Amino acid sequence: MQYSFASRAQTLMLSPLRSLKELAKRDSFISLAEELPAEELFPLSSLAEAADSVLNSDRRSLQYGEAEGYGPLREWLSCDWSRRKQLKVSSDQILLTTGTQQALDLLVRVYVDPGDRVLVENPTSPGLLQVLRLQGAHIIPVEGDSSGIIPDSLERLIKAHQPKLLLAAPNFTNPTGVLWSLERRKEVLRLCIAHGLLIVEDDSVGDLYFPQGANLPKQLPSLISLEENPGEHVLYVGSFSKTVAPALRTGWAAGHRKIIEMMTAVKQMADWQSSMLNQRLLHHLLESNYFNYDDHIQMLNREYGTRLKLMVELLKRNVWKDTAYEVPLGGMFLWVRLPAGLNGDALLKRSMQKGVQFLPGSMCSSGDEANECIRLNFTHPGRDELLLGMNLISEAVLEFTARN
Amino acid sequence: MQYSFASRAQTLMLSPLRSLKELAKRDSFISLAEELPAEELFPLSSLAEAADSVLNSDRRSLQYGEAEGYGPLREWLSCDWSRRKQLKVSSDQILLTTGTQQALDLLVRVYVDPGDRVLVENPTSPGLLQVLRLQGAHIIPVEGDSSGIIPDSLERLIKAHQPKLLLAAPNFTNPTGVLWSLERRKEVLRLCIAHGLLIVEDDSVGDLYFPQGANLPKQLPSLISLEENPGEHVLYVGSFSKTVAPALRTGWAAGHRKIIEMMTAVKQMADWQSSMLNQRLLHHLLESNYFNYDDHIQMLNREYGTRLKLMVELLKRNVWKDTAYEVPLGGMFLWVRLPAGLNGDALLKRSMQKGVQFLPGSMCSSGDEANECIRLNFTHPGRDELLLGMNLISEAVLEFTARN
Repeated sequence: MQYSFASRAQTLMLSPLRSLKELAKRDSFISLAEELPAEELFPLSSLAEAADSVLNSDRRSLQYGEAEGYGPLREWLSCDWSRRKQLKVSSDQILLTTGTQQALDLLVRVYVDPGDRVLVENPTSPGLLQVLRLQGAHIIPVEGDSSGIIPDSLERLIKAHQPKLLLAAPNFTNPTGVLWSLERRKEVLRLCIAHGLLIVEDDSVGDLYFPQGANLPKQLPSLISLEENPGEHVLYVGSFSKTVAPALRTGWAAGHRKIIEMMTAVKQMADWQSSMLNQRLLHHLLESNYFNYDDHIQMLNREYGTRLKLMVELLKRNVWKDTAYEVPLGGMFLWVRLPAGLNGDALLKRSMQKGVQFLPGSMCSSGDEANECIRLNFTHPGRDELLLGMNLISEAVLEFTARN
Repeated sequence: MQYSFASRAQTLMLSPLRSLKELAKRDSFISLAEELPAEELFPLSSLAEAADSVLNSDRRSLQYGEAEGYGPLREWLSCDWSRRKQLKVSSDQILLTTGTQQALDLLVRVYVDPGDRVLVENPTSPGLLQVLRLQGAHIIPVEGDSSGIIPDSLERLIKAHQPKLLLAAPNFTNPTGVLWSLERRKEVLRLCIAHGLLIVEDDSVGDLYFPQGANLPKQLPSLISLEENPGEHVLYVGSFSKTVAPALRTGWAAGHRKIIEMMTAVKQMADWQSSMLNQRLLHHLLESNYFNYDDHIQMLNREYGTRLKLMVELLKRNVWKDTAYEVPLGGMFLWVRLPAGLNGDALLKRSMQKGVQFLPGSMCSSGDEANECIRLNFTHPGRDELLLGMNLISEAVLEFTARN
């Protein structure tokens, strides 16, 4: 029969992310394209122990639960943020979601009408662009530099377009890895409050912060914790996917009760609730005496910091000499501007023939400003794989640059 | 600040389902309103054993997986349907979702534009009505009787409105518990094929079928298995929530590749994927030698059949004498028409004062045809709770009828 899909549904099928994912399924393929944590660092045995306790203690762990998520885990988050991030929100300001991606999708579903103007960083994450396109948002990219969004540009766009929303990731923006300065954080927050914009602050990878030791820079406060009433102007989203394990599919949105209630209602309609079993497993793990969350994150940061150093070493080779990049202090990605005239999509095509992929900049922007950039993931590939993958990309770069 | 939500988002907050759920959280409260399986029948120790194996064997069980869901579980479903339901669909025609509700939401997001006309059974499930309202669908209820949708009414509505979709649950329609006859199934399928409508067949509770023994009626074929090319005109949705456990949040949509691909794309955008850990647990359980799915379903059906009998016995008391109901052959609900003039919402209000709730018919219809009906759940309350709950509702009924 002839299927007649909804008008904007076709935007979904055009996403080149889909074919990248298909390719990455091949075992021999090296992917520096994805947003995956290292599976060899998962707390597997601790989770097995947690599962044993949870499944042998309470039948309700297999039952339906509340749309807003498992209460004790929301309490735990509230305490954890107060302790580690000087962020004060109560547990009833928190909705648990199926990862950060669902938090973004739910917010956009309840807050954005087709044609509404929405500001995003430029470049930004492909997953966010997809959510906004399906909802029919009018996407407006905001200029940024190595300290974050540029306040003058932001103010100009706000005045010109009256947007209702700014979506941003001040801690290691995806894909650029930029860490916003404290001044920028304060100034962007001030502007958004003054003009009545809601900010969605994506802190999915904020805990992946590599500097360690007393004399090194401290982590910067999130936008929400800079607010007088945390949550009034900022919705804070993130997940345990990068710090514990993605398969638990546990993320959150935290903010004003009015927004959280509305998101809870759409969450209930979308899938009733995320897995109570997973939320209980996670809560049991975090409260157990055989797992220390802080130590676990430190361990991840030591290892990911080492992998990043290796990648940066490899970029010092001659073949990369006309590229430009800034080494991020954390996150999962290195954002590289290729030598002038070398297109990320073209390089990707050549690289894939060699058995390696990365994310081309074109997928991270609604314009073509990022076409000469590529995003390299350093958290998932082990050191050997990273070395091999970078060698194969180097070969591909050489084939282009040697011709000129 | 002043939040400006999307225009249709307010429809979410109006749902009275939300306040019912709030009340049901109180421990002393008896709920015959919800769609919950009995937790005392969950295969808890078998799942604990499965968790132990899965978490101790493969680190990938905690990693991101494929948007379409865990391959071996999709294979398992394809085989199970072929064996138990004479339904032939391949695993690449199956998308795993976070329960049936998400399957419905994803389909509606990719198939329905605001203003599109959509046919539903009347009455139908509150969760489905919510999904359609948020998408802005024009909802058109189709008349039915105790054998299912009435073909003449269906044809008349198709000709008058040119709808693009029919959503139906031929196996124990929620809330009425109606089991469509074979003739009706064939006729409805024929009409929809002739007029180019896609059918969404919700089989969430089809396996909860109580008649047992050689001389009793056999389960009827699903609409999709009556198709020449299964999946071409029917999207088949359902879940393991009622047959294994809801907290695993594992459901499916099965149909034509074009639709499944589109739904997979929107699934990826909505939450990347459902929990791989849960899907692996479930697959391990279903393939294990310590759990037999068929036996488990039979055990559920014996117990649920007994609870239904008890409920029906209680309805034979004098206070219920002017009510009307048909005893279903399966499912989770008994649908009761109250004595003339007694409104379901008013009865609910009185019942809640006594500490018990049910679902009022008003929530199951976009019109007011079902206002004098109530939906009683018999699967979740244990036998004592069921007895007490029914006594309390009887008291409330008596207070109304005694006055007349």
